[in-house]
Amino acid sequence: MNGYQHLFIPGPTNVPEPVRQSMNIPMEDMRAPDFGDFVSGLLSDLKKVYRLQNGRVFVFPASGTGAWESAISNTLNTGDKVLMSRFGQFSLLWVDMAERLGLDVDVCDVEWGKGVPVEDYAAKLRADKSHQIKAVFATQNETATGVTSDIAAIRRALDDAGHPAMLFVDGVSSIASIEFEMEAWGVDLAVSGSQKGFMLPAGLGILGVSDKALAAHAKATMPRCYFSFEDMIKLNDTGYFPYTPATQLLRGLRCSLDLLLEAGMETVWARHKRLAQGVRAAVAAWDGCELVARGPEWHSDTVSAIYAPPGIDARDVISTAYYKYQTSLGSGLNKLAGRAFRIGHLGSLNPVMLCSAISAAEMSLRDAGAQIVPGSGVAAAQEHFRVTTPDMMQHTTSKAA
Amino acid sequence: MNGYQHLFIPGPTNVPEPVRQSMNIPMEDMRAPDFGDFVSGLLSDLKKVYRLQNGRVFVFPASGTGAWESAISNTLNTGDKVLMSRFGQFSLLWVDMAERLGLDVDVCDVEWGKGVPVEDYAAKLRADKSHQIKAVFATQNETATGVTSDIAAIRRALDDAGHPAMLFVDGVSSIASIEFEMEAWGVDLAVSGSQKGFMLPAGLGILGVSDKALAAHAKATMPRCYFSFEDMIKLNDTGYFPYTPATQLLRGLRCSLDLLLEAGMETVWARHKRLAQGVRAAVAAWDGCELVARGPEWHSDTVSAIYAPPGIDARDVISTAYYKYQTSLGSGLNKLAGRAFRIGHLGSLNPVMLCSAISAAEMSLRDAGAQIVPGSGVAAAQEHFRVTTPDMMQHTTSKAA
Amino acid sequence: MNGYQHLFIPGPTNVPEPVRQSMNIPMEDMRAPDFGDFVSGLLSDLKKVYRLQNGRVFVFPASGTGAWESAISNTLNTGDKVLMSRFGQFSLLWVDMAERLGLDVDVCDVEWGKGVPVEDYAAKLRADKSHQIKAVFATQNETATGVTSDIAAIRRALDDAGHPAMLFVDGVSSIASIEFEMEAWGVDLAVSGSQKGFMLPAGLGILGVSDKALAAHAKATMPRCYFSFEDMIKLNDTGYFPYTPATQLLRGLRCSLDLLLEAGMETVWARHKRLAQGVRAAVAAWDGCELVARGPEWHSDTVSAIYAPPGIDARDVISTAYYKYQTSLGSGLNKLAGRAFRIGHLGSLNPVMLCSAISAAEMSLRDAGAQIVPGSGVAAAQEHFRVTTPDMMQHTTSKAA
Amino acid sequence: MNGYQHLFIPGPTNVPEPVRQSMNIPMEDMRAPDFGDFVSGLLSDLKKVYRLQNGRVFVFPASGTGAWESAISNTLNTGDKVLMSRFGQFSLLWVDMAERLGLDVDVCDVEWGKGVPVEDYAAKLRADKSHQIKAVFATQNETATGVTSDIAAIRRALDDAGHPAMLFVDGVSSIASIEFEMEAWGVDLAVSGSQKGFMLPAGLGILGVSDKALAAHAKATMPRCYFSFEDMIKLNDTGYFPYTPATQLLRGLRCSLDLLLEAGMETVWARHKRLAQGVRAAVAAWDGCELVARGPEWHSDTVSAIYAPPGIDARDVISTAYYKYQTSLGSGLNKLAGRAFRIGHLGSLNPVMLCSAISAAEMSLRDAGAQIVPGSGVAAAQEHFRVTTPDMMQHTTSKAA
Repeated sequence: MNGYQHLFIPGPTNVPEPVRQSMNIPMEDMRAPDFGDFVSGLLSDLKKVYRLQNGRVFVFPASGTGAWESAISNTLNTGDKVLMSRFGQFSLLWVDMAERLGLDVDVCDVEWGKGVPVEDYAAKLRADKSHQIKAVFATQNETATGVTSDIAAIRRALDDAGHPAMLFVDGVSSIASIEFEMEAWGVDLAVSGSQKGFMLPAGLGILGVSDKALAAHAKATMPRCYFSFEDMIKLNDTGYFPYTPATQLLRGLRCSLDLLLEAGMETVWARHKRLAQGVRAAVAAWDGCELVARGPEWHSDTVSAIYAPPGIDARDVISTAYYKYQTSLGSGLNKLAGRAFRIGHLGSLNPVMLCSAISAAEMSLRDAGAQIVPGSGVAAAQEHFRVTTPDMMQHTTSKAA
Repeated sequence: MNGYQHLFIPGPTNVPEPVRQSMNIPMEDMRAPDFGDFVSGLLSDLKKVYRLQNGRVFVFPASGTGAWESAISNTLNTGDKVLMSRFGQFSLLWVDMAERLGLDVDVCDVEWGKGVPVEDYAAKLRADKSHQIKAVFATQNETATGVTSDIAAIRRALDDAGHPAMLFVDGVSSIASIEFEMEAWGVDLAVSGSQKGFMLPAGLGILGVSDKALAAHAKATMPRCYFSFEDMIKLNDTGYFPYTPATQLLRGLRCSLDLLLEAGMETVWARHKRLAQGVRAAVAAWDGCELVARGPEWHSDTVSAIYAPPGIDARDVISTAYYKYQTSLGSGLNKLAGRAFRIGHLGSLNPVMLCSAISAAEMSLRDAGAQIVPGSGVAAAQEHFRVTTPDMMQHTTSKAA
Repeated sequence: MNGYQHLFIPGPTNVPEPVRQSMNIPMEDMRAPDFGDFVSGLLSDLKKVYRLQNGRVFVFPASGTGAWESAISNTLNTGDKVLMSRFGQFSLLWVDMAERLGLDVDVCDVEWGKGVPVEDYAAKLRADKSHQIKAVFATQNETATGVTSDIAAIRRALDDAGHPAMLFVDGVSSIASIEFEMEAWGVDLAVSGSQKGFMLPAGLGILGVSDKALAAHAKATMPRCYFSFEDMIKLNDTGYFPYTPATQLLRGLRCSLDLLLEAGMETVWARHKRLAQGVRAAVAAWDGCELVARGPEWHSDTVSAIYAPPGIDARDVISTAYYKYQTSLGSGLNKLAGRAFRIGHLGSLNPVMLCSAISAAEMSLRDAGAQIVPGSGVAAAQEHFRVTTPDMMQHTTSKAA
Repeated sequence: MNGYQHLFIPGPTNVPEPVRQSMNIPMEDMRAPDFGDFVSGLLSDLKKVYRLQNGRVFVFPASGTGAWESAISNTLNTGDKVLMSRFGQFSLLWVDMAERLGLDVDVCDVEWGKGVPVEDYAAKLRADKSHQIKAVFATQNETATGVTSDIAAIRRALDDAGHPAMLFVDGVSSIASIEFEMEAWGVDLAVSGSQKGFMLPAGLGILGVSDKALAAHAKATMPRCYFSFEDMIKLNDTGYFPYTPATQLLRGLRCSLDLLLEAGMETVWARHKRLAQGVRAAVAAWDGCELVARGPEWHSDTVSAIYAPPGIDARDVISTAYYKYQTSLGSGLNKLAGRAFRIGHLGSLNPVMLCSAISAAEMSLRDAGAQIVPGSGVAAAQEHFRVTTPDMMQHTTSKAA
């Protein structure tokens, strides 16, 4: 193998050099007398990325899936009614977990390509006069379809209904990449992982918890131990952990937080939007291809799921990219298998890297038989990148492409 | 800070240079078409370290504590009666977890400094004619006290009683370091972690599972998701994982397994015994110090817990070692706080490194007021190391020092 | 900064991950008893890359410029007449060195864009009946202009004239990248450096020396010490060096040689040709751009020097690429400053990386005012890469593009 | 191999972790528009380590031997008379180089174990009324014997004689480790290398040059090219180099300078003295061993050369340390071969590391048949380290142990 293995999956993402350097270290004592100060600073800065003044954050040696489980098992009780929606592989898996952990799930099934059905949620919340619904779940960014939902709108629906349910958000592929305002949006539990916007290897499950959710925790009785808040709170308050933490990743997280906070979250979000627009411009230029997302209001700034042209097996595109062009594209998951491929555009990336992603996709599409014009997508992306810069990008809360 | 920060805690352990190199990598796609072959080979070789022909191994992005939870929640049911013993901080925590997860725990409390009370276990098993005891738990190496228990003897007790209970072993600080024969000893669930004998950063919870335990899994109904065997089996059988694995650590594990298997497990065990004997020779030479382990039959080859001389606060020893001598010693946990310190001697170490550990301890002990003779411990260790070599060491199953 | 800093200069080149890993090491004793075996194996394998059965190779802690000096000062005498040609910044600097070291240089000045004037050399050699010319110098690959000369043809000219002069070759940007046959071509001194085809950081000056040149060394009297063959031979014969070698780079060289020799030099050469052809296809597609090389017979497979369209300052292209697109392109040196930019395409690269290089160049060209069609170069390169593979490429000795 | 390979040679020295991290990088363009600022800052800070306000520093991709050659060939002329002294392998090699480069060397041979004969120098300088002596050479720290000479005293001898000769200092194993005041001591050329006090891999030859030496350069006519000041000055003034610099090492040097200057040179010198005193205390405790240095006025704070007891072959000690104890000790060079071994104690070290060095030496000495008391040296060193701290150490210009 020669040169880079190009990585354009929606996580694990490319690790910035300073972060890579920061993890090239010998081991250390996680009970050292000065380790506590290090941890306290880390948790404090992590809250800034979550845009959280109050509440807490937890960092588990786990994946985002573990953080999902922690969110549920620490704040809900067996049989609790919750409102969820399912419109892609990851929202589907979250529903599956909720059911397996014993929740009474009211699932809204939505066409893949759209996101959280805020109007349906609003109607159900208004109808739930007795407040049986204990929590409302939302996948902010459905990684399988490249669809971003409007979390602030869900908060408005809750508020308009005067409903006290907690708001759970899966932010695994959105937090630290696209706009996320945990406290301003009234999110109670927000799940993330190290291997996406935090630009680290996988291995940390990250959880933001509001004061309201911490209060719910006091009355939550599901069996739990590894993922329990109570043990974590007790030790975190001293700067330590109830069991051996993944110190190497914590050192990497320190570097990642420095990079993110030095840039400023608004700049990070604007950067992701600019990159995503370049990819979408390329997709628009490819004859026969189209985004899985069913409209600009759903466009994700961290990943684009792209339907291959009719008659083309997206698995061929992905396999060719991997074996012939040393490029990892995201696969089509579940019902999208064979129909779509994905380009991850979050984390440590830049326009020229995305030109290479688009080039690899173009060559692979053509090898698979697609009649797209060579260079058409790259040209469109180039022209977008030429006339925009991170500084020129005004971050707004709208998601219009 | 100048020079190495010396690390002599019983985990995380020192990472060998080849393992460190193997983790200095860019990220990769955990769904890549050839990733499955990598994983399959890894799991297969991991079984060799566990000395397991049948059954399975699982690797979770978690700590050993997570693997404990997985072992229980996948094979036992709420209210199941289990037999456990408690003689140090880690066996204590395991009992705590078992109780919190809803098991009916019959706990044998043992003097700290001794290990699993095999005779008591045998008596209880013989008395349990109706086979209410579903599982017998044993901490092979109690990291807090430096005590190793005799797992083969527990197996004999089970067999002598004709008892069908499963045998659970906490091998976090023993597997890949001291003799462990999962299949020959009839162990059903054996827990380990990456940061001990595997010489990796923390972040992987490792679990060996016998065919008998896999059969029990089919009837086990505790809620579980992240740590469930069923999801892991389904995906592992294809070479993949049900959620994002810690790929960087898996690459490190590949290198670690290569080092361990190339040396041969018998050589690895003999090496640990030789190092441990050097440390014990030093302790014997220190006036007023003694091992927490109450006799040679309990001596651990991976960690020595050492009582400071009367009147000396072990916390001063540890703090001085850290701040004045850049050396991390293990602290006295729970009831040993202030009374004992620990020297970890597992993983990637050699005799000269242990001479530095002993030197740091000697200086710190004297600074804390202990009247030990300068150099006495180092001299004793030196003379041991001079006349022994890994090749000369004949590994035997006896634990005599 | 986000994502890779893209590096497309003709050296230092991108370092492969295994090589990077191999240099992430602690220091070692260069007088260790087993270091000699390591060095002996290294020098032996290095000869394979040079395609040298007899003679020797030397590795100096230096740059290629140092190896140039070593070649001259060890085999020639003050006032010796030599035949050189000058057609770019590096051949120019070599002439300058030869003059400063006291040689009597007969310089052939050639239009930049062409290479060694073999016919002129042949005429001069035939005319030199008394064999005053002690050495003939040739820059195999002029890095400034992207021009490759025909070394085998120079050998034929020497042979046809029955001339005994030594043949010196600057192979800094050709050896380990494009065809080089030191022994078959009768090259007597061949200079290289670590930071080009060897894919290492700069810091090693490498020199191949024929038996004939070693014989000349015995009679060469220029003052020399650091770069003297005699000290190096004496110590190298035992596996050591006369002064502290750059051990970290030697460990990297070990890995690099393993990669090169495992692939096979013919495959390495074919790979470079394929990549170069892709870049040349892109240049051909850009309106107004053209190669500095004055014809296919001069095309370099390791670097393309490209004239910007009339009216466009190539310095703007390079500066924009660096600051706006995080891409390092090669600058126009000496008389090419402002007129040309360069794309290095040697070392650890692959087609998708070159698509990113071409994209960066396209965007920068357009930003600088060039009227090229967006995506035109990338499209041409893509179509080339799609229909060729390293396996399909039949390496031949012809240089036709 | 398990655990660290212990490195206690007088260079290459142990690399601090931050420096190691700083060199774990991709390659970069040494002609990048912002590279010049990086280089200018580097050279400026390097002068601070040399304690040089005026003059210049040069950094060559080379070893210290190359910097020696640069010093001579740029400031002296063939046939110039110079005053040198020879009392160990490195001062011997410097004389050899001076002779081979055509200087007329007046050599003072001194018993190995003593250093520069200042009184003899003074007498010769006073006698040289016509100022034939163009330069006086002094090896500040003779690495082979562990002998430090008094450079300030040589300056006084020159001044007392009113002699205008330049003062050349070999500071390879002293600069950045023990007191060195280039400007205050009137040193004109001072040579160092990256792999000693700068705690980097080998590969940089470093040279400090006074304004007086720069003036001499204008009239110096030896042939030179690679090591010429003129090319380096011209390019360095713009922040660049005349040929490809070793950028990876330059990035490491940036980190090293940050560490050194943050600590402060006086602290660095005091730290080395404290470590050296510990080693000397150990040697004093070993029956039959003694320092090669013939008195405290010669004691080196960076390396101790130690005579093995009568009848013991020091080569056995070194070989045993290497193969049995994974420890690299320095060998006895030239006439010290078999008689002495060396412990390097410069660079990134701490007391506990030296306890391990002393332990390895004790075991190896005893294995080789020496009748030293086990632990005796470690005990003496421990007691020294216990009662001293870097903060307690008052740096003074005296060298008394």
